[in-house]
Amino acid sequence: MMTGTEYIESLRQLKTEIYAFGEKITNFVDHPLFRPHVNAAAVTYDMAHEPEFEDLITVKSHLTGKKISRFTHIHQSREDLVKKIKMLRLIAQRTGTCFQRCVGFDGLNALYTTTYEMDQALGTNYHAHFVKFLKYVQENDLMSAGSMTDPKGDRGLRPSQQADPDMYVCVVKRTDEGIVIRGAKAHQTGIINSHYMIIMPTVALGEADLDYAVACAVPVDAPGVFHIFGRQTNDERRLEGEIDTGNARYAVVGGEALTVLEDVFVPWDKVFMCGENQYAGMLVERFACYHRQNYGACKCGVSDIIIGATTAVAEYNGVARASHIKDKITEMVHLSETLYCCSIACSAEGGKTPSGAYFVNPLLANVLKQNVTRHIYEICRLAHDIAGGFIATLPSEKDFNDAKTGPYLEKYFRGVSDVPTEYRVRMARLVENMTGGTALAESMHGAGSPQAQRVMIIRQSNMEHKKRLAKKLAGIPEQD
Amino acid sequence: MMTGTEYIESLRQLKTEIYAFGEKITNFVDHPLFRPHVNAAAVTYDMAHEPEFEDLITVKSHLTGKKISRFTHIHQSREDLVKKIKMLRLIAQRTGTCFQRCVGFDGLNALYTTTYEMDQALGTNYHAHFVKFLKYVQENDLMSAGSMTDPKGDRGLRPSQQADPDMYVCVVKRTDEGIVIRGAKAHQTGIINSHYMIIMPTVALGEADLDYAVACAVPVDAPGVFHIFGRQTNDERRLEGEIDTGNARYAVVGGEALTVLEDVFVPWDKVFMCGENQYAGMLVERFACYHRQNYGACKCGVSDIIIGATTAVAEYNGVARASHIKDKITEMVHLSETLYCCSIACSAEGGKTPSGAYFVNPLLANVLKQNVTRHIYEICRLAHDIAGGFIATLPSEKDFNDAKTGPYLEKYFRGVSDVPTEYRVRMARLVENMTGGTALAESMHGAGSPQAQRVMIIRQSNMEHKKRLAKKLAGIPEQD
Amino acid sequence: MMTGTEYIESLRQLKTEIYAFGEKITNFVDHPLFRPHVNAAAVTYDMAHEPEFEDLITVKSHLTGKKISRFTHIHQSREDLVKKIKMLRLIAQRTGTCFQRCVGFDGLNALYTTTYEMDQALGTNYHAHFVKFLKYVQENDLMSAGSMTDPKGDRGLRPSQQADPDMYVCVVKRTDEGIVIRGAKAHQTGIINSHYMIIMPTVALGEADLDYAVACAVPVDAPGVFHIFGRQTNDERRLEGEIDTGNARYAVVGGEALTVLEDVFVPWDKVFMCGENQYAGMLVERFACYHRQNYGACKCGVSDIIIGATTAVAEYNGVARASHIKDKITEMVHLSETLYCCSIACSAEGGKTPSGAYFVNPLLANVLKQNVTRHIYEICRLAHDIAGGFIATLPSEKDFNDAKTGPYLEKYFRGVSDVPTEYRVRMARLVENMTGGTALAESMHGAGSPQAQRVMIIRQSNMEHKKRLAKKLAGIPEQD
Amino acid sequence: MMTGTEYIESLRQLKTEIYAFGEKITNFVDHPLFRPHVNAAAVTYDMAHEPEFEDLITVKSHLTGKKISRFTHIHQSREDLVKKIKMLRLIAQRTGTCFQRCVGFDGLNALYTTTYEMDQALGTNYHAHFVKFLKYVQENDLMSAGSMTDPKGDRGLRPSQQADPDMYVCVVKRTDEGIVIRGAKAHQTGIINSHYMIIMPTVALGEADLDYAVACAVPVDAPGVFHIFGRQTNDERRLEGEIDTGNARYAVVGGEALTVLEDVFVPWDKVFMCGENQYAGMLVERFACYHRQNYGACKCGVSDIIIGATTAVAEYNGVARASHIKDKITEMVHLSETLYCCSIACSAEGGKTPSGAYFVNPLLANVLKQNVTRHIYEICRLAHDIAGGFIATLPSEKDFNDAKTGPYLEKYFRGVSDVPTEYRVRMARLVENMTGGTALAESMHGAGSPQAQRVMIIRQSNMEHKKRLAKKLAGIPEQD
Repeated sequence: MMTGTEYIESLRQLKTEIYAFGEKITNFVDHPLFRPHVNAAAVTYDMAHEPEFEDLITVKSHLTGKKISRFTHIHQSREDLVKKIKMLRLIAQRTGTCFQRCVGFDGLNALYTTTYEMDQALGTNYHAHFVKFLKYVQENDLMSAGSMTDPKGDRGLRPSQQADPDMYVCVVKRTDEGIVIRGAKAHQTGIINSHYMIIMPTVALGEADLDYAVACAVPVDAPGVFHIFGRQTNDERRLEGEIDTGNARYAVVGGEALTVLEDVFVPWDKVFMCGENQYAGMLVERFACYHRQNYGACKCGVSDIIIGATTAVAEYNGVARASHIKDKITEMVHLSETLYCCSIACSAEGGKTPSGAYFVNPLLANVLKQNVTRHIYEICRLAHDIAGGFIATLPSEKDFNDAKTGPYLEKYFRGVSDVPTEYRVRMARLVENMTGGTALAESMHGAGSPQAQRVMIIRQSNMEHKKRLAKKLAGIPEQD
Repeated sequence: MMTGTEYIESLRQLKTEIYAFGEKITNFVDHPLFRPHVNAAAVTYDMAHEPEFEDLITVKSHLTGKKISRFTHIHQSREDLVKKIKMLRLIAQRTGTCFQRCVGFDGLNALYTTTYEMDQALGTNYHAHFVKFLKYVQENDLMSAGSMTDPKGDRGLRPSQQADPDMYVCVVKRTDEGIVIRGAKAHQTGIINSHYMIIMPTVALGEADLDYAVACAVPVDAPGVFHIFGRQTNDERRLEGEIDTGNARYAVVGGEALTVLEDVFVPWDKVFMCGENQYAGMLVERFACYHRQNYGACKCGVSDIIIGATTAVAEYNGVARASHIKDKITEMVHLSETLYCCSIACSAEGGKTPSGAYFVNPLLANVLKQNVTRHIYEICRLAHDIAGGFIATLPSEKDFNDAKTGPYLEKYFRGVSDVPTEYRVRMARLVENMTGGTALAESMHGAGSPQAQRVMIIRQSNMEHKKRLAKKLAGIPEQD
Repeated sequence: MMTGTEYIESLRQLKTEIYAFGEKITNFVDHPLFRPHVNAAAVTYDMAHEPEFEDLITVKSHLTGKKISRFTHIHQSREDLVKKIKMLRLIAQRTGTCFQRCVGFDGLNALYTTTYEMDQALGTNYHAHFVKFLKYVQENDLMSAGSMTDPKGDRGLRPSQQADPDMYVCVVKRTDEGIVIRGAKAHQTGIINSHYMIIMPTVALGEADLDYAVACAVPVDAPGVFHIFGRQTNDERRLEGEIDTGNARYAVVGGEALTVLEDVFVPWDKVFMCGENQYAGMLVERFACYHRQNYGACKCGVSDIIIGATTAVAEYNGVARASHIKDKITEMVHLSETLYCCSIACSAEGGKTPSGAYFVNPLLANVLKQNVTRHIYEICRLAHDIAGGFIATLPSEKDFNDAKTGPYLEKYFRGVSDVPTEYRVRMARLVENMTGGTALAESMHGAGSPQAQRVMIIRQSNMEHKKRLAKKLAGIPEQD
Repeated sequence: MMTGTEYIESLRQLKTEIYAFGEKITNFVDHPLFRPHVNAAAVTYDMAHEPEFEDLITVKSHLTGKKISRFTHIHQSREDLVKKIKMLRLIAQRTGTCFQRCVGFDGLNALYTTTYEMDQALGTNYHAHFVKFLKYVQENDLMSAGSMTDPKGDRGLRPSQQADPDMYVCVVKRTDEGIVIRGAKAHQTGIINSHYMIIMPTVALGEADLDYAVACAVPVDAPGVFHIFGRQTNDERRLEGEIDTGNARYAVVGGEALTVLEDVFVPWDKVFMCGENQYAGMLVERFACYHRQNYGACKCGVSDIIIGATTAVAEYNGVARASHIKDKITEMVHLSETLYCCSIACSAEGGKTPSGAYFVNPLLANVLKQNVTRHIYEICRLAHDIAGGFIATLPSEKDFNDAKTGPYLEKYFRGVSDVPTEYRVRMARLVENMTGGTALAESMHGAGSPQAQRVMIIRQSNMEHKKRLAKKLAGIPEQD
């Protein structure tokens, strides 16, 4: 397993093609816009070497018996699913942000289980290819991006109905050696600092959409692949200094990109689905549920920081003992731990798939994510309430350092007299940035938008059974 | 283990003294006011004999190795805690109401763990007494009431500060044979159809309140014990007929009473705490957490019925396919399953106590109950929304049966033409009664009022740790 | 104008045919099931004679110049609309319940404005007929029921598509003298103690539904008319005693009935619409908006009582100074006054119709009612929270009066020592009954169900204008 | 009255001393960081000259009889209060942001009414001074900042208890000519582009805090006054281009500064309170209520834009007809119009003060602002839900303009095929920026933090009256 430093070095070896702010980026690893994201991912490597977390972050491979990072593991039990949750919360408590590595992790598990069942049903041979790739990932401790979301164009139309056929990634050519794919993947979390991208379709597909039923693994620096980095709330503050970013070391969200696939060749041994449209839906659902499972873990870890920071600001403001402040902090904890409950529950209630790998309880995983789309907003609202209006009107770090204005800001932004003004400002900037735009939108749309969860919740809820139970009690024959 | 019928017969053997509506009740077992509650409890006996639920509802005693009802079991693992949840939801799906037997179950587990730790620390000998009693309960498959809540008088005063010293149950005499206790216990769920009551203190106690630190087991028909039954929403409908009660067989809430203890003698071998005030708080907390654990199980089972009934009414009204109806039903499922997640999580995250018995995660159990005090009201609100205003204006069953009015009601209360009006009325009455006053208040105050949970949530949430995490990210020395 | 006593006497002169609990009721005025509803309506008569409310509850008729009850008035200004609101809140603060008289009041205003515009457009002569009837109502100070809601059968079908053509009131015969109508009206608030019913259609109607486009005035004791009274939460407690009903004098909801119209003859001068289907929608909307306007007034007045009662219980319990109690009471006030704001706003923003009468702002009236369907539930939830679990487990009044149990209940249900137990019980019963089933459902469905309001909110919100504003700011040509 | 252009020119005449990003700003009027705020305020000048808004935005001065901007007017009737609301919503619909001029407007009205009552009670002569200043403001159509919020230091301590006595603005010297004040005012909305600042105390003051009881008018460029500009979410995007700011012309929030008062001299005729601590509380409350009144107007106007923009994005995405999208947009309208209702209501329910000026209903104004602190967050949450995740991952404007990446972004960020990608991006950026960090925090803390409103709500709600009403209905003597 790599250390964080080795991971960072491994990124330098790649020829990843990245664009941002109208420029081609030559050394993203050391670029202040990207480095915090790299640092956050590096924590997943470093913590694996810390003895106290060994049991959580490392695991024995069921393929090779060797010790591997859990991020490359296939869940072999409910306990594995629960440990995933604990690992994610723990790392989020250190980074205070998205560390990006769960997406590929979920892609690996989704493909492992789906290719197995697809091969069983259709007689294809994808699972063996996939296991070979998985071993390679495990042995080299690689970071993968989970590449599912297509640009989608007109959301009212299926892939093959789009005016532009490239709005969903599709196979444009098949040869003896492999396939050629074209299109793009949007919202690619962590992709610029990954080694591989795990490409999957983004919707269930019908007969008309066979060419869109494609799953495969592609190096992020493969010929034809390039990445256009998305901008985030307050991203330019990273180029200026440290304090105003809130979380200078790790940033407050994961970095995301639009990844363009311009006629990219993929050899057959890295192709895990090609035309089996009837399994696209299963793959999407598997990935979505594995990924939704995470949000009560990492967002709860992130909320731990928001709650701690908000409490600290309240102390610095001199109001920590006010009953309404304590009550609001209690509410923040309540909302956050409700998310954690849902993550634990969908893991503890997981089940074994035909491949032997464990899958989360899909109903509860969707219930969880639906709660995330609400609770994180409310947690951030309460953080704003408690922290106070100055999180929105603080002058810049440069003003604090300026000879003329600095002393006045030092004087007038002090809260309780025994806490340095700088601490109060640092904590306020942490709250501000962790509760702002991109971080909120990520809670809403990461792992799928709210309506996607609602569709799955009602589908999974066995309404016929509920009606039968009610009829029995009401004295109505069950069949009526 | 008894069957439901044997359980009901066993109640006839008792001399339980009950008052209701200004009368002394001579045969409560067959009285229409009480029989539904008896029936609901009897389901816990009957289902234990159904093979498909054997693994859930029966278990091997860790004391005797014999097969016993889980309701008399001491949790030996996290799996036991999780199975408790599944059992409770399952039974609630059959009864659609409180079956009352969990309260004593939780009292047994609370006393088992607390007496062990108390004996270890203080050198007392309560645990052995308790184990003896527990074996008796297991062998005879008894139902116990968990008797915690005292009348409490002025909530701003401690027990010994009350104008009337009997506002909390207290020891008024100690002899060589045992103790004499006086006072009352309020909100005694299921007590009239229990065999024993497990008396516990209701608050943490100081040095001034030593005589209030008392725990013991008392037969519900012991000399000096009598019960005044509380009235419930629409309780008199039970005396009239079947349909208007909604759930004629099991009622829609558990029956509750004020139990008066008028100088009741308890022999020493049934006394499990007497003056050890420093352990009162632990006992209260253990019981509260075990009991709060349940509410995402039984209330979720009850909600399954409400959701099923509401959906059926929507079908009978001809609106089941409207998008806003489907969306509201989805929301009901979402809210209900969130509660279930919390019950699963506080169980799966439980831990071993010094006695070897398992205890739930107290933070998550309190988070769960806090959610119950909100979600059940919202579920009922949505049920009202979907079902329609006629749940509040339906004429009585007698009017439906009347020669003059019956045919008109039959005609004008019909919904879709192919469903008998009676079905629509029955289902509406089920919704009405399951979402009314007492059922709501029970969700609010059962297992403790909301503020009690908030106090425990903030106490259990390790705020110092959260602040340290935030300071590290904000670049502030941890000690500041 | 009549006094309350004269009003009650006037009811005795009617031959109103009423059925309840399987019986024909011979003297409803003095029957304990109905008398509280009669008393509540009588308050609208009595308060008109109290000098301090003269300006609010009486007004000069724009038709005759005479002083009349505002309940028979046609709004002549925005100030009239606002005074209506203040009057309703004031009366609700005295009755603590629905006093039923606003429904007919709203029917009068809806018909006044609609018949005027219909006559203008179609050359019909309904307005003159209506004005004649209105003068009669004003001069005799009559109470009218607003009879809109049809049974509706299958909600997915239009009136003429129903399996049973009577599911909506329709004209079955036309003669030179008048028309004959058949069908029923559901949820008829206050009808048993009204003098007239104002019949209106309940939905917009198409060409196929011409016979359902009928509006007219019918005496509640006309031949062919009879009423089957709906049962309510805890209605039977009225037959037993006083305390357990909570509000013995006025009940906690308005009385409602299914009114059957069995081939009822209506002379032409009482017919205000007959076949003009294109005006059915306007009439429904007018009535709905006038009626929705009220709910932030009467429900706010009712909430004033709930808030006062809850605060009193908190004091009796000894917890009124706890910060969380004060915060929850503040929230109850906040929610209630938000409703009041909406009632004031839709009135103050009302406008003049072609007839000269004033109409509320329809967007804001619907926003108001939508809030009612949420806030009242939350207010009741908070009342349960604060009052405590004993509202759900109190024994009956008979037990308090019983020689054996009375002294124990007196002893153990005492809160703070200087308040009689009876006061605490009375206040708890008031809270219990005001926050129970029927009262909640009335807030949900009275004046139309939530989805009806949402349809009107979006229709009234001028989305095209909002999009144009956004495009201008975003730098997008408005037409794109 | 000035035009917008004249207003902007008038700012150039001032010597306002401004610092931002560590630099002294020499020409803020044309600086891209400040110009949008100047533009927004200029709209209040320009619209006064548009004939269709004349009745709303201009008014006859009660002092001079001349036509003036309503922003310098003293409310002479409830109608004036209501017109203020309509004016604010209208302007916000054009700017999509804070136009800053209401703060000084509210300060003028608060001082007008308070100085009158103070003079009456204490025999002081402040009102005449104030009226003289007011005439000057009206005649010159000046923009004033309402300068209330002090830095406050330790929020648990009173002004005179602070370790640093300057944490609240105080009088440090009194001479025959005037006074000298020192301190700072925080969160000064619009101050850099105002002419005058209206200084007021920020809390009720006791005997120990006499020197802090100071109100006066000071030119924003007076000697000793300087401003340190606060940074906002994404403020640096203004320095780069147009699209990414969302609202390039007017920004998405008002500009705010910390204004330092370094021993500033104020002549007596501009002093309106100096030592009358007993009137500080009234002045604070008057200002707070007048200012809270606004938030259902301007925030509703801003929400009109957010709703329009979100709807447009939904159309561009191809999902506008989905039922869940329509339902969420309906909810946004509902929440926004609820705020508007509260603004109308607190205005329509306003009353006359002893000075003849009208004051809003303080209970309802606080209820309104409390709703703002919740509804705006929910509106923004729904906007995120509907708009989609791409608002958080869009590449920068520069990438769209870049020769390499531009065509790919053009291709892959297209929604429905007939809408240019640029439109979709522009609208998404508008949504992103209007729903981000600073805009949210402004809704929370502008015009006072939530707890300040709750304190006033409970204080204004006449709980004793509510208890009396409840006791009467419960049959309890009123005095008990």
